[in-house]
Amino acid sequence: MVDTSSEPPLIRRLCVIGVGLIGGSLARALRRTAAVSEVVGCGRNQQTLEKALELGVIDCYHTSPVQAVAGADVVLLAVPLGAMRSVMEQIRSHLAVDAVVTDAGSAKACVLADARAAFGQVPRNLVLGHPIAGTERSGVEASFAELFEGRRVILTPLAETDRRACELITRMWSATGADVVEMGVTHHDEVLAATSHLPHVLAFSLVDTLAQMDDHAEIFRYAAGGFRDFTRIASSDPVMWRDICVANRAPLLKALDAFDADLRELAEAVRRGDGETIQTHFERAKTARDNLYRG
Amino acid sequence: MVDTSSEPPLIRRLCVIGVGLIGGSLARALRRTAAVSEVVGCGRNQQTLEKALELGVIDCYHTSPVQAVAGADVVLLAVPLGAMRSVMEQIRSHLAVDAVVTDAGSAKACVLADARAAFGQVPRNLVLGHPIAGTERSGVEASFAELFEGRRVILTPLAETDRRACELITRMWSATGADVVEMGVTHHDEVLAATSHLPHVLAFSLVDTLAQMDDHAEIFRYAAGGFRDFTRIASSDPVMWRDICVANRAPLLKALDAFDADLRELAEAVRRGDGETIQTHFERAKTARDNLYRG
Repeated sequence: MVDTSSEPPLIRRLCVIGVGLIGGSLARALRRTAAVSEVVGCGRNQQTLEKALELGVIDCYHTSPVQAVAGADVVLLAVPLGAMRSVMEQIRSHLAVDAVVTDAGSAKACVLADARAAFGQVPRNLVLGHPIAGTERSGVEASFAELFEGRRVILTPLAETDRRACELITRMWSATGADVVEMGVTHHDEVLAATSHLPHVLAFSLVDTLAQMDDHAEIFRYAAGGFRDFTRIASSDPVMWRDICVANRAPLLKALDAFDADLRELAEAVRRGDGETIQTHFERAKTARDNLYRG
Repeated sequence: MVDTSSEPPLIRRLCVIGVGLIGGSLARALRRTAAVSEVVGCGRNQQTLEKALELGVIDCYHTSPVQAVAGADVVLLAVPLGAMRSVMEQIRSHLAVDAVVTDAGSAKACVLADARAAFGQVPRNLVLGHPIAGTERSGVEASFAELFEGRRVILTPLAETDRRACELITRMWSATGADVVEMGVTHHDEVLAATSHLPHVLAFSLVDTLAQMDDHAEIFRYAAGGFRDFTRIASSDPVMWRDICVANRAPLLKALDAFDADLRELAEAVRRGDGETIQTHFERAKTARDNLYRG
């Protein structure tokens, strides 16, 4: 990409390991604003990388992380959480001296633990991050430059994280139109367990429950519009979500247990035909949701 | 409304008891195609009825069902399930001789029981029905003529139901662009418990669980797009859904118990970090949902 502005680009060479919805969309967004000069893709599936090349998302690719990170000033790890540690171990000795490493994982304590294991300690130029954006679709074909516009990106730097590295990653995400905020690792994982991981588990679980009923074909035939919206996230990538559930299991279980206790209370109210209790729950929920999306 | 076609209208006078999203949308749809000459509204809230008059949804109104049903050839009961029996008792002795009565309730066995209680037996000209359409919004302001286009309407006539009455209600819903099917009462209630009532309970319950967490304001702040879709149905009318939960409690509890058993199995897999089991559940769900909305 030719940079026609007088300013040097924010990032000279970006290496995206895992060119899927998130990695692909970041590359597209940064290329659009000429915030990056060159994007090197990396992944295990050569077909995906060829596709990304065709789509103009990346400039070149390597299937080996070792080669892919060579000379990159920013490396984005956009692989499922279960693959983070192995990728870190592979790139450890091959990063450029000043390279800033970041990720897009949906949980952060686990990535921090992976970094400690892979690098011996958490590198000062590792800035963990999580773009709160995505769709139920996955893969580079689903990526688009506007994915992060108006969305939040949470960075979870440690006290010892290099501030200049942190600033670069903040500017990178800002260039996509995202609103960047900082948060503690533990807090991030609890908040996301409640608002993202738990709903995904419920959606997958509901569809799975219905799919196992005897007359499931008939049942699904009469699903209305609300069902489509409610279950949209059950079309998300099973491997990515499996990894999230395992990696963020403690906060997720806490949220699951709280939900299950409330659901059982509600089920008991249904069992005894206690309309008043049911209505109280429903009204509290409606008020909370209407407030959330008001205007 | 002046009927400019040479054919007489399908319905001369339609009485809509409960002029909300469903009742209002049916009136709008039938007026648009001149399938009805006159719409009489009925409800407890005079402001709502004035609004419906202003919006051109109804031609006139009464707050008393006794007066509202006078001379109507079709009467639609579009009130919450908890109000069905009382309305039936009020109109019992005031219906025109040939009047066909129908409803739009989300559960059918309970309405049948109400009819038996109110009329002494199920009238032959009572045709129970359920349009599988709706939004999380309620009230006549949210009504629109296209609501039923391409949606299914389930009728649950009994063996003794008058076929001409059934045919009239079929033609009425067909005139709105809906696809009308017939189904047994019990089967309807089981199918809808699984695809509609259970998801609503889960959505209300999830939002309620999160709203009760200490840092709920912070939690909701980081909810992504998936959360918005997933919880949309939690903005539905609490009274209507309370009534559905109580009225259809046996099939709903069956679905709730099946869901809870599956969820606990999944939670146990998360607890022991059993990625394989989690992935199996998620893949089954994704396959089922993708098949459902393919193309």
